[in-house]
Amino acid sequence: MVQNPGRRAALVDAAIEVLAREGARGLTFRAVDAEAGVPKGTASNYFAGRDELIRQVSRQIHRRIAPDPAEVEQVLQAPRSRELVIELLSWVNRRVATERTGYLAMLELRLEATRRPELRAELTRTVREVLDADLAFHRDAGLPGDRTGVTLLYLAMTGLMLEQLTLPGVVPQGETEALVAVLVERMLPAQ
Amino acid sequence: MVQNPGRRAALVDAAIEVLAREGARGLTFRAVDAEAGVPKGTASNYFAGRDELIRQVSRQIHRRIAPDPAEVEQVLQAPRSRELVIELLSWVNRRVATERTGYLAMLELRLEATRRPELRAELTRTVREVLDADLAFHRDAGLPGDRTGVTLLYLAMTGLMLEQLTLPGVVPQGETEALVAVLVERMLPAQ
Repeated sequence: MVQNPGRRAALVDAAIEVLAREGARGLTFRAVDAEAGVPKGTASNYFAGRDELIRQVSRQIHRRIAPDPAEVEQVLQAPRSRELVIELLSWVNRRVATERTGYLAMLELRLEATRRPELRAELTRTVREVLDADLAFHRDAGLPGDRTGVTLLYLAMTGLMLEQLTLPGVVPQGETEALVAVLVERMLPAQ
Repeated sequence: MVQNPGRRAALVDAAIEVLAREGARGLTFRAVDAEAGVPKGTASNYFAGRDELIRQVSRQIHRRIAPDPAEVEQVLQAPRSRELVIELLSWVNRRVATERTGYLAMLELRLEATRRPELRAELTRTVREVLDADLAFHRDAGLPGDRTGVTLLYLAMTGLMLEQLTLPGVVPQGETEALVAVLVERMLPAQ
């Protein structure tokens, strides 16, 4: 069967919507076809199986939540200060709101990974690569902070992300900016 | 129908197992009956509906993951130092491993809450109460650290919990103890 790359991408995006809305158990080829508005049986022609669909979903989520390189370059015009780190983290924080579907779908995949060792291995590799890339970016850009401090920033931002996505009333939106500022000031002591 | 409190508790515990293993969409009365090893139709006689079952599950999870007051009292014999805070957090960290099912079920409920406003309101209240109780405990016990610092400890520990439960290879178990120590040392500056 001839495959159309645009349609494949639309199916993967439809799968991300289904995952975020229905959870991993709701992610069936049938639901993806319906979400994408294509004839029944289309998704099953594009992906060898559900595992292959999930692999492509994971990659596409990471592409969607990654920052735009042009924006990164622009932000990096500023001096390498803790204020710049605060700015970068606030940006991550705002992306959780604008890319809510992608982040929610990723949480669903994390839970699905507790039930599927193969998916767990694959997601562990992907998330570890993203964390290593963040650590390398931080170091190479000459931003203040050591490896342990940046890892702890990552963990605190992950906790904040979980609250924002699932129970946004626990840590009110109005308090997050000040929390991120204190987080950076204490975690990356002045040199 | 006569209800047996022991059986009710067993059904709620069975529901927690089902939630952690199958996800929220797998949580049906039928699955709870099967998990508890009781005749079909039993759970539906004990709970007015799925919402009522979920409410009782949420309460029971929090009882299960709460620390034992006697243990808390014993730990608090020590002087009020940052070392004691490190000890308390390491303890939370170990509970995530020993009460894995309860914590996983709670993550599933958080995701289910994104789809059900009533559940979101209820879980927000519960989790906010737990956080407020932690903040009050910290203050009343005379432990070092301000409200913002303790809130940030909570967020970082939440991020660590999410990694440990879903993708334990991202932040290896062998590194967590040192991470928690640095977290406390930096987040709660010496007074």
